[in-house]
Amino acid sequence: MATRSTIMDTNSFRPDMADALDEQTRKLTEEREVLGPAYRLFYRTPVHLVKGRGARLWDADGTEYLDVYNNVASVGHANERVVQAITDQASQLNTHTRYLHENVLHYAEDILSTMPEEIDRIMFQCTGSEANDLAVRVAQTYTGGEGIIVTAEAYHGNTELTSALSPALGTAQPVGPTMRMIPTPDTYRLVIPVSDTLAPTINTGIAYSEGIDTDAAALAAMQAGLESGALIRAGEASAEQFGNWMAGEVHRAVADMNRHGIKFAGLLADSIFSSDGVYPDPVGFLKPVIDTVHELGGVWIADEVQPGFTRTGDAFWGFERQGIVPDLVTSGKPMANGLPTSLMAARHEVLEPFAGSIPYFNTFGGNPVCMGAAQATLNVMRDDDTQGNAKHVGRLFKEGVIALQPAHACIGDVRGAGLYIGCEIVKPGTKEPDQKAALDMLELLRDRHILTSVCGRFGNILKLRPPLVFTEDDGNFFLEGFESVLLELGL
Amino acid sequence: MATRSTIMDTNSFRPDMADALDEQTRKLTEEREVLGPAYRLFYRTPVHLVKGRGARLWDADGTEYLDVYNNVASVGHANERVVQAITDQASQLNTHTRYLHENVLHYAEDILSTMPEEIDRIMFQCTGSEANDLAVRVAQTYTGGEGIIVTAEAYHGNTELTSALSPALGTAQPVGPTMRMIPTPDTYRLVIPVSDTLAPTINTGIAYSEGIDTDAAALAAMQAGLESGALIRAGEASAEQFGNWMAGEVHRAVADMNRHGIKFAGLLADSIFSSDGVYPDPVGFLKPVIDTVHELGGVWIADEVQPGFTRTGDAFWGFERQGIVPDLVTSGKPMANGLPTSLMAARHEVLEPFAGSIPYFNTFGGNPVCMGAAQATLNVMRDDDTQGNAKHVGRLFKEGVIALQPAHACIGDVRGAGLYIGCEIVKPGTKEPDQKAALDMLELLRDRHILTSVCGRFGNILKLRPPLVFTEDDGNFFLEGFESVLLELGL
Repeated sequence: MATRSTIMDTNSFRPDMADALDEQTRKLTEEREVLGPAYRLFYRTPVHLVKGRGARLWDADGTEYLDVYNNVASVGHANERVVQAITDQASQLNTHTRYLHENVLHYAEDILSTMPEEIDRIMFQCTGSEANDLAVRVAQTYTGGEGIIVTAEAYHGNTELTSALSPALGTAQPVGPTMRMIPTPDTYRLVIPVSDTLAPTINTGIAYSEGIDTDAAALAAMQAGLESGALIRAGEASAEQFGNWMAGEVHRAVADMNRHGIKFAGLLADSIFSSDGVYPDPVGFLKPVIDTVHELGGVWIADEVQPGFTRTGDAFWGFERQGIVPDLVTSGKPMANGLPTSLMAARHEVLEPFAGSIPYFNTFGGNPVCMGAAQATLNVMRDDDTQGNAKHVGRLFKEGVIALQPAHACIGDVRGAGLYIGCEIVKPGTKEPDQKAALDMLELLRDRHILTSVCGRFGNILKLRPPLVFTEDDGNFFLEGFESVLLELGL
Repeated sequence: MATRSTIMDTNSFRPDMADALDEQTRKLTEEREVLGPAYRLFYRTPVHLVKGRGARLWDADGTEYLDVYNNVASVGHANERVVQAITDQASQLNTHTRYLHENVLHYAEDILSTMPEEIDRIMFQCTGSEANDLAVRVAQTYTGGEGIIVTAEAYHGNTELTSALSPALGTAQPVGPTMRMIPTPDTYRLVIPVSDTLAPTINTGIAYSEGIDTDAAALAAMQAGLESGALIRAGEASAEQFGNWMAGEVHRAVADMNRHGIKFAGLLADSIFSSDGVYPDPVGFLKPVIDTVHELGGVWIADEVQPGFTRTGDAFWGFERQGIVPDLVTSGKPMANGLPTSLMAARHEVLEPFAGSIPYFNTFGGNPVCMGAAQATLNVMRDDDTQGNAKHVGRLFKEGVIALQPAHACIGDVRGAGLYIGCEIVKPGTKEPDQKAALDMLELLRDRHILTSVCGRFGNILKLRPPLVFTEDDGNFFLEGFESVLLELGL
């Protein structure tokens, strides 16, 4: 039985591993003492990168790596058009939004044109954390409530407010007293009650409380007196059935808030549940969930830090893929190919109560250089059709990983949308998470010059999330390396 | 009697002023509707800037302006060395701190070398808000307390946590239930009790509760039965006397926290009290204050967003000018000449309880491009001696403003350190703040191609805070323009 994992004890170097490093790498890791204990390095043998192009990275020794992890360099490392835009604008002027400047206005108009017309206001910040921090306060002011729902392994930021809404940080970081968690919409392990209506009344807690092994959970549920006929494996549920189950969880969470005197403000969730372990399907399952959020007086903040900006291949935005118009939209990471830039978009009526009364100014947010970089990134996404590439290459890539399953029983499940794939590593023949094997795979992939990482509650899910310029050849390079790693591990 | 001012009703354009604008400017202001009501433009006739060099800015019509306001472009607008550093690094690689990279390590070492040796840890974020948000949580974890003290007109950021510690945002933004405010250390208007010891026991509330007119306050204090001999005008107090008064206020605030069951965590303050209205003197007055903070179990978070990076001319850091080693240091704005970059430095023992247990990762914080820009900015500060320039030009500049006082009784007080000067505009012959006159001055200065703004509780204090490359000639250009504005207004 795996212990509960946190960001802290997954893919990371520890000082006691320093003896195994070469002189230069060891020296650099030692110099990082000044950064304090919060700074973590990936890998038992950390990577010292000096150069990037497209989906390729090079270390100080000139070794080339395939990047199957970094979504910040969305249109490719050191993209020339983005670098040129930064240089051009920085050479002219970089100031703030209390003077008039076209860059922020042109970009605001352009990026809003990718969203539904109901989303007609946008504000700029520097990080996804700042965007979510602001969005939660906007939601709370609009609804007059405080209660925010997140999923059980969500990560939404590093400010005090967003950390308290990020259970993925682990138990040392307290979650907020007015937040409530609903289960990860886990299509691999959950057994859910079948319901054709919203708000099921049976307590489904037993069926997924451990969430590790479907059969054990099903057994426990039956032992608790539920009819086995009323249960279904989540992976076999229709979008409506799965959505109704999740909507029921929202009902339950709001009822608990109300019992504690907390008014519901909204749901903060990304539509592919990336930090939870990548659960994008079945498409459409969020519809009954968001309908329920609205019925209960809340708003949906669509956290698009992960699924937005064409990542899923199916649409520019994750919410669009699910066919839902959210109330608030936040994004950051992939927006400006590496410059600290983020956004919070909103329906004007949702934004008004906060922005019309409370001063908010972000010194660097929306500055001409960051907006120039964001505009160039968006231009490249359009001109190079990153959405089409994510769809096409992502499909082949996912099929390639799935094709390895029959010969390698450690691959328990392969999920994903476009260029965001989660590959679940388990003890063969069971659904028991195998974090050790997953971490060993990361290291062996690194030895084969392939960089990636893990995510999810048990830290056992390979998180395959390359720059959007990832090619079919890149995918094949990964697949060959991955197969070789699986063979070496005998898994 | 002036009404209480907030950031919202000072120097800013309102849509009802649009008719007076030229076609292009009006169109741009209308396009800003998509940014929502929180976005404010400076000036009744907003400025549309397109280019900057050093302390000069140009608008779309080619009109040149002198910048006497912007501290983000610390080493000058479009500084070539900083632009080159950004271009060079962005062309190579921009990634995060989970891979090894020299830039973050070299900069960490270099910037820590400017601080006292006790400050031996540093973490990087993207904005001053993020730095203060983190620093407050570090202080709270270290002390086990929650209570934070700020001054009455402080501004420390835009996240939920830091907004609740920013009374300058006005009354629509609630301050936090565990924060307490102490008065602005106002050397112009306060009457304080003389005390040679810390923690005075008399209630000095009456003497400064209105804080507008010294004589009225002194009268009120006497009427309340205090001996007039026990009072002194703050401007005539020694550093020790003034510091003892402020330390007494800290005592009072902590006693009130304790009465409410709140444990004291620390004082969050910048050492020149810039948002309060610029109160840098008498040098040394913070010593008894910080000693008291420590005696009461708290820490001092030195917010160096405004006074840091050579601004005061007397030292690289504001705390250094006061001769104090803080527990935590935050900064942002001037650090990387415009790229979103900030820092939180700490004593290792203060950082450890938070950073050793709670995961904190900032995606863009400390990235190679931002660190490259910060390093180039620091190099320019050293090579061009911005500290020496701030001291020399700042002194002449301040003397020049003071020289206007005899002929212009509206200049009630001139305060400042280096290139951060506050010029208090009052009704002649009184200390009554004259915000209308100050705002009229801003507009007329703008007509003379000089950009600045206002600050302080009553929005009547000209905030003269140019890039650090401001020259003697720049100062003279301002002084001539300012004198001409005063003559035009007949003040």
